[in-house]
Amino acid sequence: MGRVTVRRPVLTLSAQGERRRLDALAGEEPLELRVNGRALSVTMRTPGHDVELAHGFLLTEAVITNRSHVRTARFCDSPDMETYRANSAPDSPDMSPCRAAGQGQRQRQRSFNVLDVELAGGVPGPGDSAQRNFYTTSSCGVCGKASLDAVRLRTSFPPAADPVTVTPATLATLPDVLRAAQRVFQATGGLHAAGLFTATGELLVAREDVGRHNAVDKVLGWALLTERIPATGCVLMVSGRASFELVQKAVMAGIPMLAAVSAPSSLAVDLAVDAGLTLIGFLRGSTMNVYAGQHRIDREPSGYQALCEPA
Amino acid sequence: MGRVTVRRPVLTLSAQGERRRLDALAGEEPLELRVNGRALSVTMRTPGHDVELAHGFLLTEAVITNRSHVRTARFCDSPDMETYRANSAPDSPDMSPCRAAGQGQRQRQRSFNVLDVELAGGVPGPGDSAQRNFYTTSSCGVCGKASLDAVRLRTSFPPAADPVTVTPATLATLPDVLRAAQRVFQATGGLHAAGLFTATGELLVAREDVGRHNAVDKVLGWALLTERIPATGCVLMVSGRASFELVQKAVMAGIPMLAAVSAPSSLAVDLAVDAGLTLIGFLRGSTMNVYAGQHRIDREPSGYQALCEPA
Repeated sequence: MGRVTVRRPVLTLSAQGERRRLDALAGEEPLELRVNGRALSVTMRTPGHDVELAHGFLLTEAVITNRSHVRTARFCDSPDMETYRANSAPDSPDMSPCRAAGQGQRQRQRSFNVLDVELAGGVPGPGDSAQRNFYTTSSCGVCGKASLDAVRLRTSFPPAADPVTVTPATLATLPDVLRAAQRVFQATGGLHAAGLFTATGELLVAREDVGRHNAVDKVLGWALLTERIPATGCVLMVSGRASFELVQKAVMAGIPMLAAVSAPSSLAVDLAVDAGLTLIGFLRGSTMNVYAGQHRIDREPSGYQALCEPA
Repeated sequence: MGRVTVRRPVLTLSAQGERRRLDALAGEEPLELRVNGRALSVTMRTPGHDVELAHGFLLTEAVITNRSHVRTARFCDSPDMETYRANSAPDSPDMSPCRAAGQGQRQRQRSFNVLDVELAGGVPGPGDSAQRNFYTTSSCGVCGKASLDAVRLRTSFPPAADPVTVTPATLATLPDVLRAAQRVFQATGGLHAAGLFTATGELLVAREDVGRHNAVDKVLGWALLTERIPATGCVLMVSGRASFELVQKAVMAGIPMLAAVSAPSSLAVDLAVDAGLTLIGFLRGSTMNVYAGQHRIDREPSGYQALCEPA
């Protein structure tokens, strides 16, 4: 669809002089998400994997916990809307060619910027506040020590009891594997990435987006659609910082370990400690900071030294 | 208040072995913004400069265009709320010590996590959709070529006619000046920054936040409170990428030039072109990419070469 990267003219100034050329930019377009016909959110995202994005968003907003909770997800732009059915391959709606029913080969411009999700019968919509499952709300909103309780959601898959352990040597490999999978970043320098890994460092899926939360939602939506939620035993790796929001998304998906290339925030650490999630920041080469859940770091001296000391 | 940076225990693993210590993290707490008593948004932000944040948010959401449009902004957590009055110094509500009226020196824990803004009489609230001033909304939401029109807001201060020009030599100095002003980043490695500069490179104000949009809102709120909106002739510099959202905020504040250390997105460039804003990306040392509004780059050969070629 040519919208993941977009070319625009640019004037480059440097000590070597001026140069005019076409530059590849990360695509950014709004996606309006509708649930049962009602607008829920507008997200600025990089087009592609939108059905995953919607599933991941609804999972981490406590609306759904299983792919069966979504009856259909379809793009809206004409009477002959492309329809996603729960039993098709997860990515097919994003990637399917544009076809107008009964009109043969006629080409039409498809926009794919409004996605309408119909929930299965009996699944409460996001408008039902009970479904949001906020822990507490103080009478004054979000005050003082109650900050964490006021904004966190109740997960169906608490990761605290997950017995998985990961070696530092394995963790040290994740940034390079994720970076290698970032095809759009390599072209544009402008995208966040998220990857889901096994405890032995195998990359299950990687996604990129102009929005850090969208990249994670796409990964978690993929996991939901491939029936890997709760993602027990997995490690979620993100290319940037670890905010409260990203820790919350991991917790909602039942992921026991989140690793980030850069710094966590205070509330990210607080939620990780409280939820029993292992949180790793500044994962760069063989160096890493463990902010919560240290018991999942398998610090066998032999395994770690083997990586750090060349033979 | 000790909430801009927060200390948490961390276990650092590296080739040199293990180390336990306290690490300084960027503070992140929710801020609930209420307008005329009704909850408008909850933002995860770094505490501090919250009154600026609220003003900048309301400016860039097309609710206000002048400080006189806000009657009061006060923190809610007790009957003796701290009250911001439009004629006081801009930062005083954030920075004032905690005092309970009529209770002398008694110390109380203040939370500062709910900010209630009362608009002046005659200023429509954000609930009035006309006030949002969306350019257009197609019947199908946000489709195809209409993406930009569907999500952009109508600015009261279009920057297109701003005649300011800036030399590449001046632009090349901005990243270091901004970085030098990032006190919290230096401690935590975990914050975005935004700075407002004159056309000759003088830093007017710099703000940091875990959220890139919050850092910009704080800067623009400061500008509004110091009666510098529209910020004609100014350059807004951000430490990360230039998204659509940040370009939109600049346009809403009447800023003619936005510079970013990293990449812009496609829609950021499209909006900059459309609104007549000069957009610079990958501003690193003496190298920069100009994506829109090249006429504001004053490419006097002598001036630029003077910086790039040591004497």
